[in-house]
Formats: sequence, C-alpha cells, structure tokens
Amino acid sequence: MKLRFGVSFENDNGLRYFGEGPYRLLRMVEEMSSLRAAAQCMGMAYTKAFHLIKQAEENLGFPLIKRSIGGKGGGGSSLTLEAKELVRRYEAYRAACDHMAEELYQKHFSDFLPEASSNYRK
Amino acid sequence: MKLRFGVSFENDNGLRYFGEGPYRLLRMVEEMSSLRAAAQCMGMAYTKAFHLIKQAEENLGFPLIKRSIGGKGGGGSSLTLEAKELVRRYEAYRAACDHMAEELYQKHFSDFLPEASSNYRK
Repeated sequence: MKLRFGVSFENDNGLRYFGEGPYRLLRMVEEMSSLRAAAQCMGMAYTKAFHLIKQAEENLGFPLIKRSIGGKGGGGSSLTLEAKELVRRYEAYRAACDHMAEELYQKHFSDFLPEASSNYRK
Repeated sequence: MKLRFGVSFENDNGLRYFGEGPYRLLRMVEEMSSLRAAAQCMGMAYTKAFHLIKQAEENLGFPLIKRSIGGKGGGGSSLTLEAKELVRRYEAYRAACDHMAEELYQKHFSDFLPEASSNYRK
C-alpha cells in the first residue's frame, strides 16, 4: 500500500498555477535548454507548455524562463534565477510534505490499515 | 494564494483505490442511505460509483456498504462499521495533512512567495 500525495498552488480564482506538472516542465527545460524539446519530451503540445509557463509566471509575479537568441547552438531557453530557486524549494517542500504524510498515516491508520510507504515521483 | 492538497491510497499496481472521491461518495451514502442517490447527487453514473466502492473494498479488505432489502422505506444502502471508521480516520488524517502542508509552506517559502492558506474542501 502506498500513499500518493500532491500539492499545488492555486490563485483566488481557483486556478492551479504551480504544482507537479509545471515543476517537471521546468526541470526538463533546465536539462534540455529548450522549452520546445522539454514539452516534446513530456508529450505536451508546445503551446500548452508555453501557456503553463506564462500562467505560472503571471501568478508568481516573476519570470521563469529566459530565451537566448542565436549564438552558439542557435539559442534556446534557460531558467531564471528565480525559477531555479523555486524548483529547489519546491523539491524540498515536496519531500517534507511526503515525509509528514507518511508519519501522519502511521498515526491515524496504523492500527486499522496496512502499513504505507510514500510514493512521490522522484 | 492557496494550497491545494490531496492524498490517496494506491495499491502495488498503481491503482488509486481510496481518496477524496470515494470518501465523498461514502459520506453521501451515509447521508442519503442510497448508493444510487449518492451517485446521482455527485453527477456520477451508478455503475461508476458501484465500481469505485467495489475497488476500494477489494483493496481495503473489508466491506464498505451494506444493503438492506425491503422494510420501511423500501431498503437502501448504509455504511458498515468499518466504513464509518475509515471515514472518521480519513477526515482526521486529511485535516492533519492539510495543517502540516500549510506549516511546511511557511517554512519553505515564507521569504520567497506570498503567504498561503490551505484550501481543502471541507
């Protein structure tokens, strides 16, 4: 038995603008230095990926991706300093939540349901 | 800014068999004394509701709903003792997770993102 745990940030209109999806997209952009390649890799339309990033940027209030045009390799996308910081903090937050969810499960269910381990995608 | 948080139980095949949906369904059955009425109320096909309950029962290893046939009111569905206990514990667990997700957010994001309140549907 495993716990599947998720947390996302939502604005006052009920729009979820940051969570597992945008986080993975940012990580992929970091790795591939291209939003287009990152989207492709996640099986996501480029327009959708672009929209997700724009939406997150608008709600977070800072840019996440910067584009370099031309140069060696013909330009591409990279994460802003703020985006790198967000990714780092989100990972730590997620891991902490994950750990707590498991501990709380023990507390609330240990004498009633089987033991659980957490299942957050690493 | 709000946190949207969710936790569900998953079996070794990656099937999520208990979480917010089945929990709400059980609460509704308790209220309406009928799985059919509960499903209708949630805008869910009866067959889907039935399947969700069966799946949860199989994975939890105990029955959740018992049917009474005939009698005053023409029979209906009610929660087993185990289901009542599960509902009670899930609510407490959810509330505890919710609380800790908010606390951990403060710890990980307070000097970087706006303050957040949690948004779990009560």
